[in-house]
Amino acid sequence: MGGTDIERLIALLARLPGLGPRSARRAALALLRQPQARMLPLAQAMEQAARSVRTCSSCGNLDTHDPCTICADPGRDRGLVCVVETVGDLWALERAGVHRGVYQVLGGTLSALAGMGPDDLNVASLLARIEQGGVREIILALGATVDGATTAHWLQDRLAAFDVPVSRVGQGVPMGGALDVLDDGTLAAALMARRPA
Amino acid sequence: MGGTDIERLIALLARLPGLGPRSARRAALALLRQPQARMLPLAQAMEQAARSVRTCSSCGNLDTHDPCTICADPGRDRGLVCVVETVGDLWALERAGVHRGVYQVLGGTLSALAGMGPDDLNVASLLARIEQGGVREIILALGATVDGATTAHWLQDRLAAFDVPVSRVGQGVPMGGALDVLDDGTLAAALMARRPA
Ligand SMILES: [Zn+2]
Ligand SMILES: [Zn+2]
Repeated sequence: MGGTDIERLIALLARLPGLGPRSARRAALALLRQPQARMLPLAQAMEQAARSVRTCSSCGNLDTHDPCTICADPGRDRGLVCVVETVGDLWALERAGVHRGVYQVLGGTLSALAGMGPDDLNVASLLARIEQGGVREIILALGATVDGATTAHWLQDRLAAFDVPVSRVGQGVPMGGALDVLDDGTLAAALMARRPA
Repeated sequence: MGGTDIERLIALLARLPGLGPRSARRAALALLRQPQARMLPLAQAMEQAARSVRTCSSCGNLDTHDPCTICADPGRDRGLVCVVETVGDLWALERAGVHRGVYQVLGGTLSALAGMGPDDLNVASLLARIEQGGVREIILALGATVDGATTAHWLQDRLAAFDVPVSRVGQGVPMGGALDVLDDGTLAAALMARRPA
């Protein structure tokens, strides 16, 4: 397949999530066809990002600054903290533009299978923020999975000691979604979460 | 989305074939989580490959050497030349391990739509090899598309002046199908079932 350097490139690309062996080869080929115009700029962007990436000590977001752009933004409501599992979830909420407060990235969920216990979750900086005062509401935006629900319950217990209301994002039928393509769990949650019309 | 360095990385990843915006974000996140263990090695592999990639002056393959590993291999049959459209097709045939000869990579097909004419195809080095003598058979392994068929006919005309039999892979290549998405068995059958063109 054209030299060990090229094989190594394909092997590393194939390890990226979302890229199988076939798409890794296609991507490698596209890069190899334009080494100066495409491959070097991407390599340099990776080196630059690898050097500059920081984990925000306040919320756990990944950014080139600590505190992150969101935590440092005076326009964001620090009293409203949205708790998410991953940075990917934070990005999704930011793209949707639906949260004007700040975040807390747990870095996962409690999971016996994955060996994730309470000590593995990024919670200390949330408790510190609450103790400093000014947090008016905590929104749990965790996945509608067994582990997500377990984590939400554990976190509610943990936060009960503080005088801060805790809410959870609603579960149910996604906007624009038809009922007949949803799985049973989602349908059950949607029915449970019914409100007066 | 966490700093311009990170946004730039996502934008460059999203331009790779096979990676949409969503998978580019997932890939970026996986890299950002392990800047030292994952992102820097990939960046370095890219720089290394960009520096070392060469187009084989004999066959048009991409490799870190010129002539490429295949052309330089004394175990390959130089008398049997398989003509393919792209380096991706060459890789597919090599993965299948069904061709023991050498290749000629055209770099595309004749295509009015894409503005590809005879001068845009890498044919001169094939003619030179034939003129040097020793080429016993030329196998046309072009896609079963209109442009592939047009190119095959044009190439047959071009090669008619030489006393070298030209065959075409036929059976096994689905209509409208490109070679580099076929499974190994189909590729093997197509090559075995070649007929005089
Ligand atoms: Zn932050
Ligand atoms: Zn070669």
